[in-house]
Amino acid sequence: VIELTREYRFAASHRLHSHQLSQDANRETYGKCNNPYGHGHNYRVLVTVAGEIDKKWGRVVDVTRLDSVVRQAIIEPMDHRHLNDEVPEFARLVPTTENLADVVDARLRAAWPADLPALRRVRIFETRNNTFEIGHV
Amino acid sequence: VIELTREYRFAASHRLHSHQLSQDANRETYGKCNNPYGHGHNYRVLVTVAGEIDKKWGRVVDVTRLDSVVRQAIIEPMDHRHLNDEVPEFARLVPTTENLADVVDARLRAAWPADLPALRRVRIFETRNNTFEIGHV
Amino acid sequence: VIELTREYRFAASHRLHSHQLSQDANRETYGKCNNPYGHGHNYRVLVTVAGEIDKKWGRVVDVTRLDSVVRQAIIEPMDHRHLNDEVPEFARLVPTTENLADVVDARLRAAWPADLPALRRVRIFETRNNTFEIGHV
Amino acid sequence: VIELTREYRFAASHRLHSHQLSQDANRETYGKCNNPYGHGHNYRVLVTVAGEIDKKWGRVVDVTRLDSVVRQAIIEPMDHRHLNDEVPEFARLVPTTENLADVVDARLRAAWPADLPALRRVRIFETRNNTFEIGHV
Amino acid sequence: VIELTREYRFAASHRLHSHQLSQDANRETYGKCNNPYGHGHNYRVLVTVAGEIDKKWGRVVDVTRLDSVVRQAIIEPMDHRHLNDEVPEFARLVPTTENLADVVDARLRAAWPADLPALRRVRIFETRNNTFEIGHV
Amino acid sequence: VIELTREYRFAASHRLHSHQLSQDANRETYGKCNNPYGHGHNYRVLVTVAGEIDKKWGRVVDVTRLDSVVRQAIIEPMDHRHLNDEVPEFARLVPTTENLADVVDARLRAAWPADLPALRRVRIFETRNNTFEIGHV
Repeated sequence: VIELTREYRFAASHRLHSHQLSQDANRETYGKCNNPYGHGHNYRVLVTVAGEIDKKWGRVVDVTRLDSVVRQAIIEPMDHRHLNDEVPEFARLVPTTENLADVVDARLRAAWPADLPALRRVRIFETRNNTFEIGHV
Repeated sequence: VIELTREYRFAASHRLHSHQLSQDANRETYGKCNNPYGHGHNYRVLVTVAGEIDKKWGRVVDVTRLDSVVRQAIIEPMDHRHLNDEVPEFARLVPTTENLADVVDARLRAAWPADLPALRRVRIFETRNNTFEIGHV
Repeated sequence: VIELTREYRFAASHRLHSHQLSQDANRETYGKCNNPYGHGHNYRVLVTVAGEIDKKWGRVVDVTRLDSVVRQAIIEPMDHRHLNDEVPEFARLVPTTENLADVVDARLRAAWPADLPALRRVRIFETRNNTFEIGHV
Repeated sequence: VIELTREYRFAASHRLHSHQLSQDANRETYGKCNNPYGHGHNYRVLVTVAGEIDKKWGRVVDVTRLDSVVRQAIIEPMDHRHLNDEVPEFARLVPTTENLADVVDARLRAAWPADLPALRRVRIFETRNNTFEIGHV
Repeated sequence: VIELTREYRFAASHRLHSHQLSQDANRETYGKCNNPYGHGHNYRVLVTVAGEIDKKWGRVVDVTRLDSVVRQAIIEPMDHRHLNDEVPEFARLVPTTENLADVVDARLRAAWPADLPALRRVRIFETRNNTFEIGHV
Repeated sequence: VIELTREYRFAASHRLHSHQLSQDANRETYGKCNNPYGHGHNYRVLVTVAGEIDKKWGRVVDVTRLDSVVRQAIIEPMDHRHLNDEVPEFARLVPTTENLADVVDARLRAAWPADLPALRRVRIFETRNNTFEIGHV
């Protein structure tokens, strides 16, 4: 079994604001991330698939197909978007990078073609100092 | 003469939309960057000062003072902000990274204490593939 | 379950010298790292915690508290220090990066608040070519 | 148990061409990578070993010996080489990075001295966007 | 005046062999780079243009046009190619990175549209340790 | 004219303490960098030479000779050393990175063979956020 990790990138804006918290609690919890005008990041998304190497063509996955899945499920709906206003999952879910990783992972699993090798892990860099990872054994 | 280049970072959102262009021209010119909800970036700002090494303490600049100038002029007003809505210069100026570099440079020059060594260069990374630089001979 | 990995940095000096080896064996084993005057590194420390995303505020951990634990246990006692002379564990333990990883991990576990999500992994970059990792299943 | 990951690098050329596929299928499958003149990469190889820290000298592995194993098995036969023409395994095996990871892993395991700590993982970066990893539990 | 530096990448193979040197002198001069089967690199090419910011749309250059010039002059003829065998300039010119920088610079200047801002600099990374730069005042 | 920039690295320790300042002034000026036990860094040194491409062998400089100059003048006397105690220039000169850049530049110029292309610039990274550069027109 071999793993391929492929990196994708998108730029988006967001605002950290929880509908389950009061205005004051939001401000205290999220600080400047609660700014109503929002702010943004260059997100790096690392997608890992795991499978056997195909004997004939020496590949673990058809990268063109993998790219197409990621582009349709993640890049097109999120790149150059405001996560709170334009990505339905965040209409009421606060777009922390934890929740973003969860949404990216759920979207990929929902869109995953049965004949692609297994999705093993999703990892998101919010800045160079913070990464979030969700894995599947 | 020695140069010190120091890196700062901030995360902001923006929308590319020129008041001098029609709605259609904006869409055609800026594409997905014209999205009315905005999007964002992690900007890296490199500030270069040039001067002589102080014989006594071996430094070209008091870094604490340099940081304070940059923090007040750039980081506090721009970090975790929406450039169009919260930075006055962009009320009518389109916040491309070219114009952002120009605004950062102008703000630093306006705030620059007379006794700091000369501001030589401002460089901004929008993504890892694009950098913009304004220099002063 | 989601993992957050957060990067910290500190600059320290050390000397590789084992009290269990003769002078000659020390010189042969550690080479230029045995230099009695010491040398130093910029260490990068990656701390990984694993837990569930809090439904209400969308976070796996309160980063301010995590930073405070790491700062008190690791950064303040080790940053801009000589590991052999100023960090008690290395009074008789040779400060290889293996032992440093072990000490960092032990200090974090000892200081870990019961209500923080589990400490999953500690990883240290000594240079860009060498990393050391200690994990907990 | 601690893991050490050490990075090595080599520059090589290759051509993706499978003897089990027709000329047309090769062109369709590998596109520009099937170019008969070949092309090349700077490969980064990360080798991870896992073991206990030696009490006496504070190391998990003698890095000089590890380097010697990797140099003889991988760097000397592959650096500044054409993988298809000069590395015997690729005489009939298509040198995708998946197969390269497999060959690197097999060569290391075959050459591994019994008294070195266990080889845990091999990871290869083909470009900054694609990495391939083979692990051993 | 502002400078934009934009990064492009291509993967190619080459062989260092000068038609002005004997077989022995080639081997001695270029060492393993003279290997007749060739080897390869991931080249990073940084192209810098300098000009004024257009008042209306806030850009120094139309990036789509810049990309198109670089793609036609450099990326398409060099990416996934063998420089000696497939890039005419290297039929008799040894493809060191110095000469590659010179060829890339000459090709860009020859293809440069009169209405694009000036080409200021070309910089090529052969590996992370070596860069070559040609500038125009 | 083409420039080659080549990167070198060394790890050293130092203590910021000026013989021209009182104990208190030292503590106030250099803060934790004044710690008497010292601390350390992984320094990256970028050396830039500028010259014409040799027609015959396509190189701007014989890299083996350049490496030898840098190794003898800089790496051997400074790598795995304590700058204050083991590098004579710092016996009474405070080893800030400004002064280190100055010493590296002076040592290279003193050792520079007349037939090597001109030394154009020395640049030192102390950490990823701070670089110091000395150039020669």
